[in-house]
Amino acid sequence: MRALQGRLDLCSINTATLGHKAPIGEVIDTVARFGFGGICPWRRDLEGQDVKAVSRQIRDAGLSVSGYCRSTYLPATTPEAFRANIEDNMRALDQAAILDAACFVMVVGSLPKGSRNLPAARDQVAEGTALLLKHARSVGVRLALEPLHPMYANDRSCLNTIDQALDLADALEPGTPGAPNLGVAIDVYHVWWDPALAEAIARAGAARRIMGFHVCDWLVPTRDFLTDRGMMGDGVVDIPIIRGMVEAAGYDKLVEVEIFSDRDWWRRPVEETLSVCADRLAMVC
Amino acid sequence: MRALQGRLDLCSINTATLGHKAPIGEVIDTVARFGFGGICPWRRDLEGQDVKAVSRQIRDAGLSVSGYCRSTYLPATTPEAFRANIEDNMRALDQAAILDAACFVMVVGSLPKGSRNLPAARDQVAEGTALLLKHARSVGVRLALEPLHPMYANDRSCLNTIDQALDLADALEPGTPGAPNLGVAIDVYHVWWDPALAEAIARAGAARRIMGFHVCDWLVPTRDFLTDRGMMGDGVVDIPIIRGMVEAAGYDKLVEVEIFSDRDWWRRPVEETLSVCADRLAMVC
Repeated sequence: MRALQGRLDLCSINTATLGHKAPIGEVIDTVARFGFGGICPWRRDLEGQDVKAVSRQIRDAGLSVSGYCRSTYLPATTPEAFRANIEDNMRALDQAAILDAACFVMVVGSLPKGSRNLPAARDQVAEGTALLLKHARSVGVRLALEPLHPMYANDRSCLNTIDQALDLADALEPGTPGAPNLGVAIDVYHVWWDPALAEAIARAGAARRIMGFHVCDWLVPTRDFLTDRGMMGDGVVDIPIIRGMVEAAGYDKLVEVEIFSDRDWWRRPVEETLSVCADRLAMVC
Repeated sequence: MRALQGRLDLCSINTATLGHKAPIGEVIDTVARFGFGGICPWRRDLEGQDVKAVSRQIRDAGLSVSGYCRSTYLPATTPEAFRANIEDNMRALDQAAILDAACFVMVVGSLPKGSRNLPAARDQVAEGTALLLKHARSVGVRLALEPLHPMYANDRSCLNTIDQALDLADALEPGTPGAPNLGVAIDVYHVWWDPALAEAIARAGAARRIMGFHVCDWLVPTRDFLTDRGMMGDGVVDIPIIRGMVEAAGYDKLVEVEIFSDRDWWRRPVEETLSVCADRLAMVC
């Protein structure tokens, strides 16, 4: 496993960690000044911005783009709405290409309003991902399916384990000779509980499908389903064990910090949050 | 799948659904008066009670005992504390025998305070379950491992899928000729999201290890990690599909209602909650 001490260049900051408070131009400069190697912006950061100019600013600051967050949910109640979701994601893929993002992060959605049909939602995800994969290839972007914790199975994602995401990737993109265009983003928050974790990570690595690796922590107690994620070291996830698995499986890209924290880190100055991220990456990841 | 219309005799009430407000003697009478076929008491209901007398009252009321809730968490920080947990559970097994419970429900616990070592917690669960299985056999009680939703992986249970519980059961009790003494309790709340659900339930049934089946619903939004479970029909779980799988796999025992609902059902009169349970069992389960 790579040593992270003194190697912030191996680490990236997902802008959600900073609460989307400052304009992206400012965030890029601050993240670069701290010495991080990359950044993962969200689409909301780029609203009303010239994406090419932002992309240039990121490169000029010496940063790479570890990912671009994230897809519009795919499942919908009508074919028209489904099609609109796909088209919206295609526009985002075009932006990801301009940003030269290492991957486009796919949070796929789940039950459309009024539905209890999880298999049907999963079918829509498969159909939509197939459509997006075609476009992603044409613009040179890799799709990273992010399995989300099962506590989000009703709305945010009907993909809930690494194995499930890999099954979908294998079905849609079997045995490519080159580097796969469809893979997974592994976030410790979503997968740490999985009894099949070690085998699933090894499988993902063997298929060269690990396209992102995110860290944060699971707080005890967790007081909110979405926005109470912890700083690395403040919770119960054994992050080094999981990073060890991911890197043993061949992952050699950036370690990205993504923390949703309405009650704590989003309330602190950006510099303080980044400083603690840097310390914790070195000490407990 | 069995029709539940007019068949409350196929259904059971877990006393947690009623918020443990009334004394057990009263609850038994009320549940029986509604026409339910069974009851699943908690250990807290029996504190200070003569267990034999309660058992007699349950039979005299025409009810069976669909389960006895629940185990003290197994993992501990010291061997002494671990041993104390085992002994506490052995006493509960003696009570389950007196109650003639269909199973003793095992909520196994997870990380002891200060630990991040999930595999070690799982090892303690395996060791403790092996010890309890021996005692359970000697007193004629079946152990039902209840896999809990992965959002409880840090504290309530490091068993989080049916397959994981079955792996443990197979390891501790391989190929018994008679009916297994170690199995699973399947609660729709904990397993509905599982992409491997159909296969896991079929596997559990083929091994004759389904010892309990619990229903409630997953509310959207869910406002609390523990006590915001929904009445059947008020959430997004496709309960009939899951009950169909469970019964196709050979389960022919009671359908048990278990709802933790601090914000809603626990605040209503017991009779109202039971009346709605009866309606929903008939209509949406």
